[in-house]
Amino acid sequence: MPAAIILAAGLGTRMCSSLPKALHPVAGRPMLNHLIAACEQVFDRIVVVVGPGMPALEAAARPHATVVQAERLGTGHAAAQAAGLLRDFPGDVAVLYADNPLIPVETLHRLVTRRAEAGLALLAMRPADPGRYGRVVADAAGDVARVVEWADADAAERAIPLCNAGVVCAPAADLFRWLDAVRPENAKGEYYLTDIVALAVADGRRVVAEEAAEADLAGANSRAELAVLEAGMQSRLRAAAMAGGATLVAPETVFLAWDTVLGQDVTIGPNVVFAPGVTVEDEVEIRAFSHLEGCLVRRGAVIGPYARLRPGTEVGEAAHVGNFVELKATTLGRGAKANHLSYLGDAAVGAGSNIGAGTITCNYDGVAKHRTEIGAGAFIGSDTALVAPVRIGDRALVAAGSVITEDVPDDAMGIARGRQANKPGRGFKGKKG
Amino acid sequence: MPAAIILAAGLGTRMCSSLPKALHPVAGRPMLNHLIAACEQVFDRIVVVVGPGMPALEAAARPHATVVQAERLGTGHAAAQAAGLLRDFPGDVAVLYADNPLIPVETLHRLVTRRAEAGLALLAMRPADPGRYGRVVADAAGDVARVVEWADADAAERAIPLCNAGVVCAPAADLFRWLDAVRPENAKGEYYLTDIVALAVADGRRVVAEEAAEADLAGANSRAELAVLEAGMQSRLRAAAMAGGATLVAPETVFLAWDTVLGQDVTIGPNVVFAPGVTVEDEVEIRAFSHLEGCLVRRGAVIGPYARLRPGTEVGEAAHVGNFVELKATTLGRGAKANHLSYLGDAAVGAGSNIGAGTITCNYDGVAKHRTEIGAGAFIGSDTALVAPVRIGDRALVAAGSVITEDVPDDAMGIARGRQANKPGRGFKGKKG
Amino acid sequence: MPAAIILAAGLGTRMCSSLPKALHPVAGRPMLNHLIAACEQVFDRIVVVVGPGMPALEAAARPHATVVQAERLGTGHAAAQAAGLLRDFPGDVAVLYADNPLIPVETLHRLVTRRAEAGLALLAMRPADPGRYGRVVADAAGDVARVVEWADADAAERAIPLCNAGVVCAPAADLFRWLDAVRPENAKGEYYLTDIVALAVADGRRVVAEEAAEADLAGANSRAELAVLEAGMQSRLRAAAMAGGATLVAPETVFLAWDTVLGQDVTIGPNVVFAPGVTVEDEVEIRAFSHLEGCLVRRGAVIGPYARLRPGTEVGEAAHVGNFVELKATTLGRGAKANHLSYLGDAAVGAGSNIGAGTITCNYDGVAKHRTEIGAGAFIGSDTALVAPVRIGDRALVAAGSVITEDVPDDAMGIARGRQANKPGRGFKGKKG
Repeated sequence: MPAAIILAAGLGTRMCSSLPKALHPVAGRPMLNHLIAACEQVFDRIVVVVGPGMPALEAAARPHATVVQAERLGTGHAAAQAAGLLRDFPGDVAVLYADNPLIPVETLHRLVTRRAEAGLALLAMRPADPGRYGRVVADAAGDVARVVEWADADAAERAIPLCNAGVVCAPAADLFRWLDAVRPENAKGEYYLTDIVALAVADGRRVVAEEAAEADLAGANSRAELAVLEAGMQSRLRAAAMAGGATLVAPETVFLAWDTVLGQDVTIGPNVVFAPGVTVEDEVEIRAFSHLEGCLVRRGAVIGPYARLRPGTEVGEAAHVGNFVELKATTLGRGAKANHLSYLGDAAVGAGSNIGAGTITCNYDGVAKHRTEIGAGAFIGSDTALVAPVRIGDRALVAAGSVITEDVPDDAMGIARGRQANKPGRGFKGKKG
Repeated sequence: MPAAIILAAGLGTRMCSSLPKALHPVAGRPMLNHLIAACEQVFDRIVVVVGPGMPALEAAARPHATVVQAERLGTGHAAAQAAGLLRDFPGDVAVLYADNPLIPVETLHRLVTRRAEAGLALLAMRPADPGRYGRVVADAAGDVARVVEWADADAAERAIPLCNAGVVCAPAADLFRWLDAVRPENAKGEYYLTDIVALAVADGRRVVAEEAAEADLAGANSRAELAVLEAGMQSRLRAAAMAGGATLVAPETVFLAWDTVLGQDVTIGPNVVFAPGVTVEDEVEIRAFSHLEGCLVRRGAVIGPYARLRPGTEVGEAAHVGNFVELKATTLGRGAKANHLSYLGDAAVGAGSNIGAGTITCNYDGVAKHRTEIGAGAFIGSDTALVAPVRIGDRALVAAGSVITEDVPDDAMGIARGRQANKPGRGFKGKKG
Repeated sequence: MPAAIILAAGLGTRMCSSLPKALHPVAGRPMLNHLIAACEQVFDRIVVVVGPGMPALEAAARPHATVVQAERLGTGHAAAQAAGLLRDFPGDVAVLYADNPLIPVETLHRLVTRRAEAGLALLAMRPADPGRYGRVVADAAGDVARVVEWADADAAERAIPLCNAGVVCAPAADLFRWLDAVRPENAKGEYYLTDIVALAVADGRRVVAEEAAEADLAGANSRAELAVLEAGMQSRLRAAAMAGGATLVAPETVFLAWDTVLGQDVTIGPNVVFAPGVTVEDEVEIRAFSHLEGCLVRRGAVIGPYARLRPGTEVGEAAHVGNFVELKATTLGRGAKANHLSYLGDAAVGAGSNIGAGTITCNYDGVAKHRTEIGAGAFIGSDTALVAPVRIGDRALVAAGSVITEDVPDDAMGIARGRQANKPGRGFKGKKG
């Protein structure tokens, strides 16, 4: 029954952003929420440490508790802010970082499991470029003797490939006692979380390092590093989609959201973007340059190219949505088609109906949105405006070029357009000169 | 005068697909057909071994013969199914795999040429990660002594970098005699094609290994591997296009089909997708986000951004197709323009005509498609619907906003729209509240 | 007070292009102009050497002087063509290549600074693959003893990692005296610029090599190499954008122009293309598949997905431009919205106005362009054509589906559409059979 403290107070100065660092999204979800979701699989209680004046961060952390670190005095100080809530917690407490959104549930489990063997467990990694990370110095038994900061390390210590990832796990009572003992005796005058390793050793406790992959522990202090995190997350999501039986013709050009669901034998062309909230059933084809958000696409449907499905849209079985077509809060019945240059908003289209090219639902009058209902087996001629609220009946036909302002009954034809006149001799004379 | 057996019976279980593995496309063409096309340059006769109940595969193989492997008992068993057609073939027979679509014609030629030196030739490669491939053990003369499976190999053998690609070539009579002699004495109880190497050596034949690049022998057992094949094919196609004098501003974002033809001084912006059947003449500019399929674009035309050219389209010399414009089975004459938000289907547009923004051909009445003919030097005003079948004459002018249902003669103006009324005081009051 | 000679006479035969090599663009600007822009930061005078019959190159070089190399007799001969303009120049003269567009201003500064220490300075690099570059042989003092061409180099010389980049800098009088002394005594019978190194040494001058990064000295002799240059430039531009506080969700899919300006907390989705001339203010969101050129987007605006902003467009503060919307030479006032399938050309839209889906400005009559003026607080109903020249007043309302040909006064409603008729029993019968 462990708990987790997530440090999220960082401003992320190098992001050059007014948004708190932990709220920058990866695959359409804030970094903090990625980490919370992983933690919810492992920890019974989660406390998020935020900075002062970060209401958006507190909202994102809900329903989990937040505590405010009023002054930014270092990672040890930040973790200590959770003492009021967790000092008496009857189990282990891990300390994690909000900008580590890629850390797998499995790695968290391993951290907690390893803690049971020792007084303190930490996560370590072997980066391709160890750079200025603190090094994990092993003792004769292979346990952690100490963590030495790069600045304080001698040449032999700097040659150690195992680096400290900063994530720790210890029994609550020990953790907070050690945090209380940390002193800001360093160049920056900050309280460093890492100092508890030395305190644990001084207490005679065994300290163990659980290794994790560098990529799983990636953090982001700049927009460039955020883009690297995003790329890492996208690689995972694409690989999972392909393993599940979706063809991604050019996986590196498909952008998935953290919650995208793709069925088997789904084919996705190049350059397709998924925002959150999309479910695609089996045997759907999504062609190039499509953009989907908050929608359900049923089995065998064909989407795109250049289709935009917005939230609240449901595309029925074997229905077609073609190029330069936008659907918003619209349901398209089984086998219905809207293939060319159309906007359907707040509409319901019955099974088998055909929406001609250039159809526009006029769903907004500047004050409120209104609904367009189209029955089954109807045919909406091309270049038609449907002025909502309006209902087109089953098997109704709307003549091409009409502006429909009144309901069209079942089995009726609606027509609303000017009469044609031809004026001889008044053709196109072309450009002068 | 050699022949080829192509093994295509694999279900590709790891593809998680109801489509036979060999039919998964690469650059818009099934893997099998890539290999068949290469084989047609080298082999006089081709036999494709399919599994039971794979009519789509038999169709894809046509006009080449297919034989059905009723039970999946291994590669040796699969190749042996061709015995009825090829046992008496008076020449060499090679055995190839349908999921090796990148194998170059030149490599096949080298395989056949090397066979003439020996009793059996096989293709070998030096993979970056040799992993669990079978190793090719050389004798003192540098010929193949044997192929040892990874599971049976000792440490010294596993250190051999040369790996068996599984492709073989031998005289027909020998090949089938050896295949008859293969026994399923292994863990899986399958008949392995590779066992014929040992049989050839036992027969006193010289066996030679022809080396090929790992990338040329890439196969696909999963969607992820299929994506790697696609990427490899795209790299080849892009390099060839650039070498031929096309500028690809961002080649990694241009997706070509196996048969795309690009002229000299063609410029292609980022994010352009070519489906099969496209020919682009010299000095054409194709801007970002365009999608072309089954069409001919003549010299000096400008396409996109966001143009979709569908099958049966021909864009004339120096003609323009602009953003959010779809052309289907439509010819655009020399210098004609359709630059903004239009759908032209089943239409012919004469030289120099201008198609205004928002023009829609209403080509479908729910039952059949009808044609729109527009003469030369005509001007179609914006936001116009052309209800087919209809003909707009040479130098005719259609007034903006018209719904044209009758022919407009040469040199005439057609107009079909409502009269405007202005109602004072009934302007927009904005949102309440 | 140095001067620069830029060699731009190359035809670029391997480009397979009718465009002179130096005019092929990188990030939307000809290679020559990238180099000129860098040179303008360092050199007081610039002379561009062009080939015969290259008027476009001379135009691109303006206001800088050009001289014509009538015969292509080598780089030394090309540089010597500037003698008429620079022989008496009272300072240093550097010789550069037009197809080195990535060379940083800082590198040019260092070249000039190093020259002051010696009689001749050259740029050198340590390529990952030194291949057939000429090698820079050092003397005991670490200065340049000579440059040896690969063909003439022995094994020890070929093992030298330092390669000659061909760029030199020397006092004008010396440079041209040495150039006069260069002889075409080599296999090709050409005058090589590099030969002046030996002449400088023979004159008893000290020669120094300033090292530069290989990537900064990249050149392009083929379209494939041009694509590599473009990729290098894009990497720089993307990194600078992110360092400045813009989020690029997938930086590798965003294509920036050399002069793109992005504010802080700008978010750019995948697959966005910037042509030259774009300024984006703070807190703008540009969604996937957008294409911007020659436009200004003010603070807090939301663009796309699938928005195309063409030259002369200004999008006001907090305004919205949505999917499949094209703006050309159009200003959108503060908070105005044009969200769906519209074409606005030569238009001005007042603050807070709403442009409905499918709105088309009919700005072109085949002869001239005309303007559409829309006031503040107006509401243009969906699927409306505005036939320019036309003015829609403040707080005016245009009924959906109208074709507006006359001005609509302030606070009035304009309506122009046919009346609807419903015909019972004439509904859609569906496909026969």
